[in-house]
Amino acid sequence: MNIKTDKITLSTKGHTDIIDITDSVAKIIHKSKIDDGIATIFVPGSTGGLTTVEYEPGLIKDLKDVFEELFPYKAPWAHNATWGDGNGASHVRASLMGPSITVPFAKGQMTLGTWQQIVFIDFDTRGRSRQLVVQVMGS
Amino acid sequence: MNIKTDKITLSTKGHTDIIDITDSVAKIIHKSKIDDGIATIFVPGSTGGLTTVEYEPGLIKDLKDVFEELFPYKAPWAHNATWGDGNGASHVRASLMGPSITVPFAKGQMTLGTWQQIVFIDFDTRGRSRQLVVQVMGS
Amino acid sequence: MNIKTDKITLSTKGHTDIIDITDSVAKIIHKSKIDDGIATIFVPGSTGGLTTVEYEPGLIKDLKDVFEELFPYKAPWAHNATWGDGNGASHVRASLMGPSITVPFAKGQMTLGTWQQIVFIDFDTRGRSRQLVVQVMGS
Repeated sequence: MNIKTDKITLSTKGHTDIIDITDSVAKIIHKSKIDDGIATIFVPGSTGGLTTVEYEPGLIKDLKDVFEELFPYKAPWAHNATWGDGNGASHVRASLMGPSITVPFAKGQMTLGTWQQIVFIDFDTRGRSRQLVVQVMGS
Repeated sequence: MNIKTDKITLSTKGHTDIIDITDSVAKIIHKSKIDDGIATIFVPGSTGGLTTVEYEPGLIKDLKDVFEELFPYKAPWAHNATWGDGNGASHVRASLMGPSITVPFAKGQMTLGTWQQIVFIDFDTRGRSRQLVVQVMGS
Repeated sequence: MNIKTDKITLSTKGHTDIIDITDSVAKIIHKSKIDDGIATIFVPGSTGGLTTVEYEPGLIKDLKDVFEELFPYKAPWAHNATWGDGNGASHVRASLMGPSITVPFAKGQMTLGTWQQIVFIDFDTRGRSRQLVVQVMGS
């Protein structure tokens, strides 16, 4: 058994920027020389989330629209009243989506579907540099 | 430490079909002969999700109703306009629910509550044959 | 590689009580003497959930408000009609949030952001004593 803790560095636009990180995760698994196990991807920070999606422009728009309809950036969030940083919706979206995803792999290949990509979503209200944690564990 | 990667094969009805997979996961853990560790369950594909629920008809109905109210199948999803496959709501529901769940077990028993079952939800708009990945890791 | 399965015992108020468990998880990792790996936190029971959040009063209010707006406790849930225990909304909220979270750690430190806390949310309609599972795996 072996463990490798690595990072993905991203430059994002914020505002529910949805970024395909599948290739970056695959490279980290390959580099780890671990054949079978799990990759745990984690967002350090409370305004980003992780999930999988068929990465195509229609769905990217649909997801952004759904988040904006349910949790509008301009709603009167209590977080904004307290801190004045205006990103209450970013926090709420991130907490509901969750900060981690676990993807199994076998014989060096993640068990993703053909049309399934791993995405990081930056819900913050400004562009940011982000470092995601990717920890590979297995044998 | 040991790792076993296995599968559960399911036949679903789609349309937010909610299927109890607890026994199938328990059997895979038992078969692995691993006593303590985690079972990672993963949906390869972007129109299915995993969670836990008290599996009884009232709640199954409540969950389906909530998904239909928030993300109706017949809404004008951009994904449908692009691809014409009509399952935009399926993708959105799956991405928000997430494709994986991690369940710890100790002395061969999952740490589930008495009234808590693991469920796979097939959000797609047609019945499908599905293979879920169950990877057991521990000692 | 090593595995330690431990517990956090909590007394909650229910009604979407949001409790910061970061220090309790950190202590369990420290006690395990495992340096690098993952902590899997799991709720045994189908009316509680786990996520991360910047733990400040404004956001705690925002999250409670969002849950109540989308999944009101007093809505006519089918679960309530069947069982009469009145906590249909608790179950729906918990299933959508998910029962587990996986947090990587390296050199004994969880990879959390500076303003990011791990929280347990008790969605049930009464105060309860809860035991959460924390399983630490690594080397």
